[in-house]
Amino acid sequence: MMLAETLEACQAEAFRRLARGVADRLCPFHTPTLATIGDDGAPELRTLVLRGFDPAARTLRLHTDARSGKVAELSRDPRCALHLYDPAAKLQLRIAGRASVHGEDAVADAAWAASRPFSRMCYAILPAPGTQVDAPPPAPRDAESGRGVFRVILLRFDRLEWLELAAGGHRRARFAWGEDGLSESCWLVP
Amino acid sequence: MMLAETLEACQAEAFRRLARGVADRLCPFHTPTLATIGDDGAPELRTLVLRGFDPAARTLRLHTDARSGKVAELSRDPRCALHLYDPAAKLQLRIAGRASVHGEDAVADAAWAASRPFSRMCYAILPAPGTQVDAPPPAPRDAESGRGVFRVILLRFDRLEWLELAAGGHRRARFAWGEDGLSESCWLVP
Repeated sequence: MMLAETLEACQAEAFRRLARGVADRLCPFHTPTLATIGDDGAPELRTLVLRGFDPAARTLRLHTDARSGKVAELSRDPRCALHLYDPAAKLQLRIAGRASVHGEDAVADAAWAASRPFSRMCYAILPAPGTQVDAPPPAPRDAESGRGVFRVILLRFDRLEWLELAAGGHRRARFAWGEDGLSESCWLVP
Repeated sequence: MMLAETLEACQAEAFRRLARGVADRLCPFHTPTLATIGDDGAPELRTLVLRGFDPAARTLRLHTDARSGKVAELSRDPRCALHLYDPAAKLQLRIAGRASVHGEDAVADAAWAASRPFSRMCYAILPAPGTQVDAPPPAPRDAESGRGVFRVILLRFDRLEWLELAAGGHRRARFAWGEDGLSESCWLVP
């Protein structure tokens, strides 16, 4: 029994699982991996929390700190990729698109307003993330002073690959979108 | 209670968990994410199975198909990154280094000889992985004919970042190696 039998069902199931990844903190899709191009041109990747998904706009929302390496990297090259893997479902999604970074606009204001105090605290850390220190710093206690460095990453994707592993034959499908919506939908050899 | 209290303990625990990732198929470190630079310069990433780890050489072993995009990508730019995340342990490892691809040498012969028939079958698939097809192809039944396209990726890493999440304060550490061994070992602001 595969998760989806048709291309349409694969796309619908991928979108359904992205939405569940936002809502369900225990779901593996809650913590995807974001890849960017580092300042030396080599790839960089790290876990982020999937905070939002707008299926109509095909945007995924992630939160970060203005002082993080990924903000600098996305400013230089907004092309990025997101990877999600559910070992129990044996399902991988590979997503590619471009990111915009929001700090002082309504997107960031809304995300900050909806965030919990515990989540806000990490943005209050000093000195900046990635700074070398003599000992691990304690967790910040201040939930509000981090607003200035809080950033929202909106990843608008135009490519999605579905890969479901199964003993009877893996299933791999590619979806791409252009200005007029879905432009490609096909099976690939896995 | 943190997984490791000192820099030395972080490095030892990271290496121990890489070894466990090879041996334990149920461990999240068994299926890391590999990032490469795609042919358009944007990042590409996908799940692979961690097949081997040589701590003395700092090499991680992964298997792939000569016809896959990642082999072409690593031929153009061997710089790559590997990401491992254990949600239960709240531990992330970020690994960076350079990959070599092996097909017709002792490294590949040994890896093929040690692989199971079930693992060998996927290399027998036709046409090449990534080819557009009208319907998902069935799983190949032939365990031997794939040897010609079987490839080993050896990722030799020179940088490793440890990140352990904890309510009392996250712990982040960076390790780097040069020609004479460990060249950097420090705490970072998380």
